[in-house]
Amino acid sequence: MSFKVAIRSFKTLAYVESYKKIRDRPLTYYFAAIIGAGCVTYNQYKQNKNKVEAKEIMQLRNYMADPVTPISQLEKNPDDMKTQMELLIMRIQSEFCRALEKEEDEESKFKVDRWIRKEGGGGITCVLQDGRVFEKAGVNISVVSGKLPPAAVQQMKSRGKNFENKELPFFAAGVSAVIHPRNPMVPTIHFNYRYFEVEDKNEVHWWFGGGTDLTPYYLNEEDAIHFHMTLKHACDAHDASYYEKFKKWCDDYFHITHRGERRGVGGIFFDDIDHPNQQSAFEFVTSCAEAVIPSYLPIVQKHKEDAYGYYERQWQLLRRGRYVEFNLIYDRGTKFGLHTPEARYESILMSLPLNAKWEYMHEPKANSPEAKLMQVLKEPRDWLYIQKTKSSTT
Amino acid sequence: MSFKVAIRSFKTLAYVESYKKIRDRPLTYYFAAIIGAGCVTYNQYKQNKNKVEAKEIMQLRNYMADPVTPISQLEKNPDDMKTQMELLIMRIQSEFCRALEKEEDEESKFKVDRWIRKEGGGGITCVLQDGRVFEKAGVNISVVSGKLPPAAVQQMKSRGKNFENKELPFFAAGVSAVIHPRNPMVPTIHFNYRYFEVEDKNEVHWWFGGGTDLTPYYLNEEDAIHFHMTLKHACDAHDASYYEKFKKWCDDYFHITHRGERRGVGGIFFDDIDHPNQQSAFEFVTSCAEAVIPSYLPIVQKHKEDAYGYYERQWQLLRRGRYVEFNLIYDRGTKFGLHTPEARYESILMSLPLNAKWEYMHEPKANSPEAKLMQVLKEPRDWLYIQKTKSSTT
Repeated sequence: MSFKVAIRSFKTLAYVESYKKIRDRPLTYYFAAIIGAGCVTYNQYKQNKNKVEAKEIMQLRNYMADPVTPISQLEKNPDDMKTQMELLIMRIQSEFCRALEKEEDEESKFKVDRWIRKEGGGGITCVLQDGRVFEKAGVNISVVSGKLPPAAVQQMKSRGKNFENKELPFFAAGVSAVIHPRNPMVPTIHFNYRYFEVEDKNEVHWWFGGGTDLTPYYLNEEDAIHFHMTLKHACDAHDASYYEKFKKWCDDYFHITHRGERRGVGGIFFDDIDHPNQQSAFEFVTSCAEAVIPSYLPIVQKHKEDAYGYYERQWQLLRRGRYVEFNLIYDRGTKFGLHTPEARYESILMSLPLNAKWEYMHEPKANSPEAKLMQVLKEPRDWLYIQKTKSSTT
Repeated sequence: MSFKVAIRSFKTLAYVESYKKIRDRPLTYYFAAIIGAGCVTYNQYKQNKNKVEAKEIMQLRNYMADPVTPISQLEKNPDDMKTQMELLIMRIQSEFCRALEKEEDEESKFKVDRWIRKEGGGGITCVLQDGRVFEKAGVNISVVSGKLPPAAVQQMKSRGKNFENKELPFFAAGVSAVIHPRNPMVPTIHFNYRYFEVEDKNEVHWWFGGGTDLTPYYLNEEDAIHFHMTLKHACDAHDASYYEKFKKWCDDYFHITHRGERRGVGGIFFDDIDHPNQQSAFEFVTSCAEAVIPSYLPIVQKHKEDAYGYYERQWQLLRRGRYVEFNLIYDRGTKFGLHTPEARYESILMSLPLNAKWEYMHEPKANSPEAKLMQVLKEPRDWLYIQKTKSSTT
């Protein structure tokens, strides 16, 4: 497995390099290169018959921008998890952006901002705003390194990491996205997958974290089950205990404590994954990230033309207010990001909806579709009847 | 001075009592009582010629709801600062609500919610929503007591209070308001005045805090100067050094750190006022609270019919997004409130605007009225030329 992955990374790097060369050449060379790359692609596809590789080959001309890490440096370290993770998030970002663009009107495209961080690294922020289908969609990757300030080290310690309480060298790479559709019948999705390295006493500690969760405005049970089922499949391929554990973690994390309600119908959430080994953990995160499109796009396609009116829009705006509350008050990533000096706040806050509303003492009518949603937010449901199945078999 | 205040509180209590009786009587008695009270009022006004007393007399039938503390208990302790503060905030709340209602259409009135806190005390929350002049206006008082949890004690300690790190008996009474007008040419105002008591080692520690600040969407220098001048007059009557000190404190506090901009054009802000003595400190806070109406209402009256269009509304909504960012990320009161178990979050979050907006990478055009506002938010101005005057006289 590990050998295969090394090969794959090496090949992806080769394509990245050829992409760079292509980009720098005049247009005629560009077409020739595409044909050439096409042949190489086809041959290699035939030889390897590796699904993931084929996907990364197709990715070639598709990255949203140049990688943050110089290509030459990536090429030198194809086996390094830092390289593998950066290539993964580049691919996930572009696949997801392209998939969303396909649902949109021709003219609605992601705006791409590649940014560099003074202290090391940078990111690529892609935002599509005011589209017909998506009111605001943000997909961000960041690859940053440098010294972790003592306050941040302290936060790691409080999470059980046994680090020295001083500035430590670190590396972090992640992809995160929040999609706020226009139609209230289409839920908001959020996902984030990340890899961390911290160096302490000449030892490198690494771990993965992430999750995907859904925030509907109107509850559609079929959609919620489809969403959870897709995530469960991604988890089950790696560890039969993961889905149940990470589903509960998600319900606990996306909790608007002061209101006693969840942000949405959940999904999965995990952190500190450093087992069974680095490659397996990476494969697990890859599966989760690859499950985003199949978990969400069918729901978008199904509902994007649904009928709705003024009342449904108002309810959506109120729920978006709750989304803002969670993100600004509780979300660890947002808080950590905004308290980091020189943070690129526009990338952190791209998760906020285009529009939100707060009404004093708003209460949905009893037995209304809005009240039905609230019930599920107040008492998270076991969508796949896991507990029920368990208790009936024991 | 202290004697006068005691008399005044005693009289206010007498009126509160008579109000209670009036309320419980049939309508005919009510009119008789008004005439009676009018005579008493006139006589006492003639005898005392005390401006503040006259105001409190007029207040009589005007409170938004019954006081949180039972009237019998208030009557028993007329000299107690807890009583004086509760009566002050009741009066300030109703005066301000009535003043705002006068600017509104006939049918737009404050909705009044009197609430009780399980652990002790309660509050009166007044909200006017979706008016013609005010999109959302919230004026809240709370009078709470009980045990301060260790986490809250810890926060006091970090502010330099030398308390034991255990649950301590406390009392807090305060009024706070946030007014979001509909017309983008009318600024948002916020004020908050509060009194704290904490009992530690059989000693009662007390202090006052508060402030008033203005958040315009379009800069009108004349308005900003009028606003600051009114606050300066209120301060100057008590300590010539206060305005300058508290103006700076306000600029420092209402800082959206991640954006490097202030929430608005400032005002005054102070905390831990426990000098020169309790009565003087109370008189200072009274002056500040009484300055709210003259500082703000003329600005509302001047601009509430100003012309504006779609573009100005959009800018107002974006700035309201910044207001939400400050309140949910930085504001100590909001954070403290929301992390208190059983907090009445609807009263805490009434400060949030009815509508807010977040656009990725929004940048006002150079030299536009929006850019002119941003300049002042990035570099707070010395509205009353205090520094300039100082340097020219030294």
